[in-house]
Formats: sequence, structure tokens, C-alpha cells
Amino acid sequence: MIEIKPYSRGVYYYETDRMGIVHHSNYIRWFEEARDDFMRQIGMPYSKLEERGIIIPVLSVSAQYRKHLTYEDKFTIQLHCRKFTGIKSFFEYEVFDEEGNLCVTGESSHCMLNSELKPFRFKKEFPDVYERFAEAAEEGPKA
Amino acid sequence: MIEIKPYSRGVYYYETDRMGIVHHSNYIRWFEEARDDFMRQIGMPYSKLEERGIIIPVLSVSAQYRKHLTYEDKFTIQLHCRKFTGIKSFFEYEVFDEEGNLCVTGESSHCMLNSELKPFRFKKEFPDVYERFAEAAEEGPKA
Amino acid sequence: MIEIKPYSRGVYYYETDRMGIVHHSNYIRWFEEARDDFMRQIGMPYSKLEERGIIIPVLSVSAQYRKHLTYEDKFTIQLHCRKFTGIKSFFEYEVFDEEGNLCVTGESSHCMLNSELKPFRFKKEFPDVYERFAEAAEEGPKA
Amino acid sequence: MIEIKPYSRGVYYYETDRMGIVHHSNYIRWFEEARDDFMRQIGMPYSKLEERGIIIPVLSVSAQYRKHLTYEDKFTIQLHCRKFTGIKSFFEYEVFDEEGNLCVTGESSHCMLNSELKPFRFKKEFPDVYERFAEAAEEGPKA
Repeated sequence: MIEIKPYSRGVYYYETDRMGIVHHSNYIRWFEEARDDFMRQIGMPYSKLEERGIIIPVLSVSAQYRKHLTYEDKFTIQLHCRKFTGIKSFFEYEVFDEEGNLCVTGESSHCMLNSELKPFRFKKEFPDVYERFAEAAEEGPKA
Repeated sequence: MIEIKPYSRGVYYYETDRMGIVHHSNYIRWFEEARDDFMRQIGMPYSKLEERGIIIPVLSVSAQYRKHLTYEDKFTIQLHCRKFTGIKSFFEYEVFDEEGNLCVTGESSHCMLNSELKPFRFKKEFPDVYERFAEAAEEGPKA
Repeated sequence: MIEIKPYSRGVYYYETDRMGIVHHSNYIRWFEEARDDFMRQIGMPYSKLEERGIIIPVLSVSAQYRKHLTYEDKFTIQLHCRKFTGIKSFFEYEVFDEEGNLCVTGESSHCMLNSELKPFRFKKEFPDVYERFAEAAEEGPKA
Repeated sequence: MIEIKPYSRGVYYYETDRMGIVHHSNYIRWFEEARDDFMRQIGMPYSKLEERGIIIPVLSVSAQYRKHLTYEDKFTIQLHCRKFTGIKSFFEYEVFDEEGNLCVTGESSHCMLNSELKPFRFKKEFPDVYERFAEAAEEGPKA
């Protein structure tokens, strides 16, 4: 298993709404930022996967909101790649504020498709990508 | 129970991403649009609730993606107010394309707070609002 | 010249920011919505142009803010197609609130490109599209 | 005059559209990010100004697009505070890609208001803020 470093940045003004806090939809976008960062960390940046004809659309996403963040707060996301089945991948997210309070938790699931949005034999066609995801995941077939 | 009419509009160009389809985070925003429409339908537009010091932040949200929508597709959201406890409300969403295919499903839960983001005695302080939510919900204490 | 009907809708909650008003970047997106509506009105929906290999990227955009709009305000955009040169098009926008106050004005310019982002002989290759844009524009070569 | 360090980050996936490139409205948001960074650099983070009752809404904004950026591109924004009159401030922006190509240029103007969105005697009421803006601006009354 690969140790994944947390992803961190500050909240932008345009991410807040008139409640004065970050609009809840933006956490879903931040999960994507954390996932992209994860893929760079395992040496498989998503732009490179796209070039090779692999896309990884979202099958489901969820978020639970405990504590709001607002403008200029700094947040940190700890991502866990819980499972990789060879076709599907499952992620969990924990969003912390600067004091280390757990603010938002979330989950997402994804499938690996080719650029025609069709499933394909991932392990056979892209063994190097398969291997990296398998190594990064806590559960699932190992490479 | 109040019959809730579906909410409908077309997809904007800026709601798509480079996968060519609607970015998954936008469905979470559309759920909010459908919720706002629901509150207008029950005679309690959210802007009026805000004026009276009521805010309804999101506690949790989730979405399951089955079929993608893209630019200029017209979509329809059928919202169900599943439950209202007096403090919390629970919604379900079904997003259909123009052919009636179920594209995305979702859920959200919310709590009623005052403008200091604190809970309050909703039934006592705002009996008219309480009553409308109770009538609109499929489950929960009736007015 | 074709009479262009104004484009209208209400402000969504997620379009506001913690200043309590619509974030200024959203007007740029609304201009795009009005442009899309214009293209549908002249019988040339942008999705159809894309299918035929025509894209119309933005060369420049500007906005002047006079009066803010906020959540649940209804706005109307009057678009003017000021000029069409055969390669470039120039639009002006006026955003009004429900009382008819002019809230925001704007301009944008665009070029017609093929899907490889290269210019092409628009009049020759797509005479029907050329003609409609020429008819809709206040200035420029007529069809 | 204060030397302003450029602002830099990578493009997020959700900032692209189905043309495959960054949606033009996002550059307007990036200008705001660069402005926020500028205010932090001069020791006047916007969140602190808000706390003291100062807001700085946008009066006008514009952008000229020369070269597109896309997913995972790294960009750098060089901001110039062109002028500060005591009530209004004027900024210019240059967005560069990693190879140093100038991709987008832009301008914005702003006014200083109190939290009731009214003008006030900025120099008298907030001399420290006035001074920092005056020092940072290339033109205008000096502190």
C-alpha cells in the first residue's frame, strides 16, 4: 500500500454562498481535486490516463456535513482508496479544518471506461495502471 | 400531502466538462434548484424563510449516476419530500431525460436552524412554515 | 434583421456569494446562456453547430456592474448581435431586474473555428449558418 | 511600490468544458484568486477587511483570450494594481502558461464600500488599509 499525502488549499471567495459559508456542492469538487492529487501521487495523473484512452467517470458520490468552512479557511483532505476491483474503485474523503476538526466526510465510486464510455479489460490492456491502483487500494486483488 | 410538480430546464454549456458530459457536481446544484422550486410550490419560498430568520443547511447529500446528460439536453427532476421531523427534512430526487430515462437519483437531508446557525423550536415559533412542510412530507408528524 | 426575444430566468442560491449577492463571474455565464438562446432563436442551436464541426470560442468578454441582483431575483437579458464579419461576431448584453432597472451591461466577441480550433471559409462551407448570423447582426456583410 | 509575487496553481478538471478547455468564465474567478493573494501579500487579507466592515465589490471586469489552457496545465497570474484613488482601485492581470506564453489578459475595477454597500471616508476611517493600497498602486495619491 502507498502512503497518500493529504491534499490542502484555502477556500476561494466564489466558493461561498449567501449563508456566508462554502456552498455544499463545492466539497464534491474538492473530492475530485483530492482524487486528481492522489492519481498524481501514484504516478498516474488523470490527464495521462485520458491520453491513453482511459476515463474514470463517477458512479456515485456522497457527503456528510458536520462543520462549515468559509472564506480563507485552509482545509486538508485525507483520501483513502478503500477498494479497487479492476473495474471499479472506491474512495473515502475526510475534510479537516486548520485546527484538525473533521468538517466533512464523503465517499465516491467510479468505473474505468475507454473513451467510448465502454468497459474494457483493464488489467490486460493497461497492466501498469492496473498495478498502481491495486497497490494504492486497501482492499481488492493485488497486482 | 401536496402534489409536487416536477422541475425542468435545459443543460447549460458551462455545466459540461471535458468528458463532454455534465460535470457530476452540477446534479447536486440541480437538487438545490428542485428544492427551491418545491418550497415555492408549497408557498414557502426560501428567500422568505431567510427573511424570517430560518435557514436550512444541508446535512448530507448523495447521488447515483446511471446515464449521462449533456449540453442542451432537457432534464426533469421529480422531488419527493420523504420525511419531516420538525427539525430535519429528507428529500429524494429523480432526474429524467426527455425520453423519460432515469439518469440520476439522489437524496439529501437538512436541518432547520435560525440565522445564528442554532436549532430552535420550529413548530412553536413558525407554526405556518411547520405546517406546510408537514403537509408536504410523506412521513412524519402531521400539522 | 431578426427580432431577438429577451432571455429570462431566476437567480439560483448557489450563484450568490457571502456578500449576499450574485457573484460577478456568473453574469459572464448568463451571457453565454443568452447567446445559446439567441442561437436557438435564429434556428442554429449551438449543439447542432458543434455536430457539424463548428465551434465559436470567446475572444473577449467584459461586464459593467451597476446594481446587484440576488437570490430569487428574476432577471432578463436583452442580447444584441452588433456585428458579424463572417469570421467574428460581436454581442452586447443588458441585464434587467424585474422592475426594469438596468443592472449589468456587457460585451463579448467570438470567432468561428472548426473543431481543430482553426479558422475556415465559413461562408463557403456553411452558407446556411453564415446567412442566419448575417441576418441576425445589426452590422456587417449581408447574406 | 510593493513588489507583488505572481499567483500560481493548476487547472482543475471541473474548470474545463466540453470544448476540452478551461471555460472562459473561470478566468474571471482566477482574477479574484489573484486579487485575494495580492491583498494577503500587502498584509490586508480580504477576510480581515470584511471583519472591519469593508467590502470591495467589482465595478467592471474584462478578459481577452489568446491561448487556451486546459486540465492540469499550470498557470501563473501576474497582477498589477494600476491605480488607487482612495475610493476606487484598478487592477490588471496577465495569465501565463508554464512555458511563459501570455494566454489571457484582463482588467477589473472596484470600489471600497462599507457593509451596507455605501461609500465612506476610507482614508479617515481606515488609514492603515488606505496606506497599504496606496503603496501597492502604481498610480494615485500616495499615503
